[in-house]
Amino acid sequence: LPGDQIEFDRIRGIIEETYRQFGFGNIDTPVIERSEVLLAKAGGETERQVYRFNKGDTDLSLRFDLTVPLARYVAEHFNELSFPFRRYQIGKVYRGESAQKGRYREFYQCDIDIVGKDKLGIYYDAEVPYIIYRLFRRLDFGRFVIRVSNRKILGGLMESLDLADKTTEVLRIIDKKDKVSSDKLVDMLTACGLESKAIEILVGFAGIVGSCNEVLGKLKGMNVTNEKFGQGIEELGVVTDMMVRMGVDERYFGIDLSIARGLDYYTGTVYETILVDHPQLGSVCSGGRYDNLASHYTDQRLPGVGISIGLTRLFFKLNELGLVSGSGVGAADVVVVPLGADNIVCALETGQWLRDNGYKVDVLIEDGTKIKEKFRYVAKKNAKAAIVIGDDEQKAGKYLLQRELADGSLEKKILTKAQAIKELKMICG
Amino acid sequence: LPGDQIEFDRIRGIIEETYRQFGFGNIDTPVIERSEVLLAKAGGETERQVYRFNKGDTDLSLRFDLTVPLARYVAEHFNELSFPFRRYQIGKVYRGESAQKGRYREFYQCDIDIVGKDKLGIYYDAEVPYIIYRLFRRLDFGRFVIRVSNRKILGGLMESLDLADKTTEVLRIIDKKDKVSSDKLVDMLTACGLESKAIEILVGFAGIVGSCNEVLGKLKGMNVTNEKFGQGIEELGVVTDMMVRMGVDERYFGIDLSIARGLDYYTGTVYETILVDHPQLGSVCSGGRYDNLASHYTDQRLPGVGISIGLTRLFFKLNELGLVSGSGVGAADVVVVPLGADNIVCALETGQWLRDNGYKVDVLIEDGTKIKEKFRYVAKKNAKAAIVIGDDEQKAGKYLLQRELADGSLEKKILTKAQAIKELKMICG
Repeated sequence: LPGDQIEFDRIRGIIEETYRQFGFGNIDTPVIERSEVLLAKAGGETERQVYRFNKGDTDLSLRFDLTVPLARYVAEHFNELSFPFRRYQIGKVYRGESAQKGRYREFYQCDIDIVGKDKLGIYYDAEVPYIIYRLFRRLDFGRFVIRVSNRKILGGLMESLDLADKTTEVLRIIDKKDKVSSDKLVDMLTACGLESKAIEILVGFAGIVGSCNEVLGKLKGMNVTNEKFGQGIEELGVVTDMMVRMGVDERYFGIDLSIARGLDYYTGTVYETILVDHPQLGSVCSGGRYDNLASHYTDQRLPGVGISIGLTRLFFKLNELGLVSGSGVGAADVVVVPLGADNIVCALETGQWLRDNGYKVDVLIEDGTKIKEKFRYVAKKNAKAAIVIGDDEQKAGKYLLQRELADGSLEKKILTKAQAIKELKMICG
Repeated sequence: LPGDQIEFDRIRGIIEETYRQFGFGNIDTPVIERSEVLLAKAGGETERQVYRFNKGDTDLSLRFDLTVPLARYVAEHFNELSFPFRRYQIGKVYRGESAQKGRYREFYQCDIDIVGKDKLGIYYDAEVPYIIYRLFRRLDFGRFVIRVSNRKILGGLMESLDLADKTTEVLRIIDKKDKVSSDKLVDMLTACGLESKAIEILVGFAGIVGSCNEVLGKLKGMNVTNEKFGQGIEELGVVTDMMVRMGVDERYFGIDLSIARGLDYYTGTVYETILVDHPQLGSVCSGGRYDNLASHYTDQRLPGVGISIGLTRLFFKLNELGLVSGSGVGAADVVVVPLGADNIVCALETGQWLRDNGYKVDVLIEDGTKIKEKFRYVAKKNAKAAIVIGDDEQKAGKYLLQRELADGSLEKKILTKAQAIKELKMICG
């Protein structure tokens, strides 16, 4: 409905503006692409959810995320882009899930990615959560924490235990550590076929918490001799150190080694963002570092780092919690109401004069409507004031400004042009 | 590509802002709807072009315009909306035409409509072309003319000739009057089965040109006794008179009785907008008055008036003519370039400081890239300036501002914080 839409657009606008402030450029890829392109990499659940159909002889699908279209785009326009390529995209994606409250089959994703040519410095892995930090401070949804980890750490640990092939399973189990007892954790790891020595190490790993420096210290203290493990710790150290040096308070971020995000896709740093007072929403902004964006479309190696916000679901949830609909902004700041047909031209001129002064103005030129009905319209539109133009006002070159005060009473003032602008500045800003 | 996208977004932004200034609220309907809903009214060519498919047991289609979804939306939310309902919608629509230059299968439409409950005053028919006028003045694509007509005039004339069933055919023929000789016009009308008396009247009608007052006078002078005919003249008189009184110069609009737009859909006032220096583009903004928006979804009578801009095609054509890509605005105003790894934190801080001052800033934190390559990146990004941070600048708390001048030479200035902001204000605005 229009009121919700205004709030949705406001939030979307903040996201877009923040992305732009950081020098990201918009791209707008098709919603429909050839299935062979869109599904080159997909499989399993993803492929089952895709909207796929034929038009003529062409096998088409609707995009199910903005990452695959980005890969296709970068591969196609490789020679015309400048790297590191910073792009944002805000658009609808489609997944044929069974629709339920807060899950949509058509929903907005708001993505940024920085894609390098052959290489991309680790510092970008710190800039991305810094952008999350600036964005969520501005969105003002309450306290939040950006959880950071690095996939190489567990990957290296599993390699050192000769269990690399079980990394995904183990990550899934460790991800549950806050929801189950440590006995249950051991049971699950045992069921996974692990020996007690390995289980002991992994349970110890899963139990590492503390400040960034503490976690990094404890990881180093594990004395694991594996290159990947060491590299993961080093990268995580650079990222968290850089975030602190850029002024991100540790109240807003921390290391969480259990992040299971993007089991296969991400290869290094990973992020999740939790609204502290609403953990049931899960991560509201997630992403990470990947080794190669577009291996299905080009031989050119394209490492990158990015994040995505599932805006439709987030908005629905926040709206449910009453966290977004407070602004009461209407589609019009002011409604100009001519009293009779003879006042319409004057009302239209007044409308344009107010627009020229920066206000959103709707002129209610419906003739023959009862005055009471006209004011019901003004109220329903959430306009902050009405300017009424009757014969007297028109003759005198004045404006009757009418608005509802907080206590429900009506305030009426007859004003000159200059006074009206002054008054509106006070009311509407 | 990113450069075109920036221009596209700029134009889209002007359209959206103008619609908002006039108190229109955004709605965002699904791209996918049930075929029975979307195709309730469609037929023939439209239905053939629709992207239609099954997902599970559901017969789905992609929207092919924004009007049908509006009708469904208003019918569904009738009790929650305030009327006259002013909505804008800017979104993609889908038509499976054979893709060719300037014709797209996926393209943006930018629509506004004002929908009344039971009735909608004629004055809204004047407000809509006034909005077109304000919008196209602002878009600055060169000279334009808004052509206005009223379907009731020809409709009434045909009724008076007892030829009401031939109205559509005759309108199609009259629409060609500027492209064929008057003999040819007579031939076509004869082939249509009309008698010479009727043909004489219609050729006379088709030949009516002049200022608004002249055309209205000549129409009255035809002495046709038909209620609809008279009503059409009266409405057209009110609309054009109101436009003049609102300050729209007759250089920007005129009556054109041959507008064939929306053969069946529109029932009163109709509009087309022509870029005078590029008539080959056809109408770039069209619309009109309709009697009943949503007869397929509700018994409630919903008369309305609206317009639509096919933005994707318009942009492509204007771009081809070199009319849109002149701004040279980049995704970043400034690129901050740290010279070494030790300068990265300082560069990131500088970036945020510049963002806080209102600039779009990209920090090129790619380490190990050659300096020459870094500046190639700055140039390719269309940034207006680079701020270089080396050890010397960092130590001195100064900023090396570097930019390419119009003659291709490089300007370098070492500046204090205050000087840098002053300089950037001059360069970037």
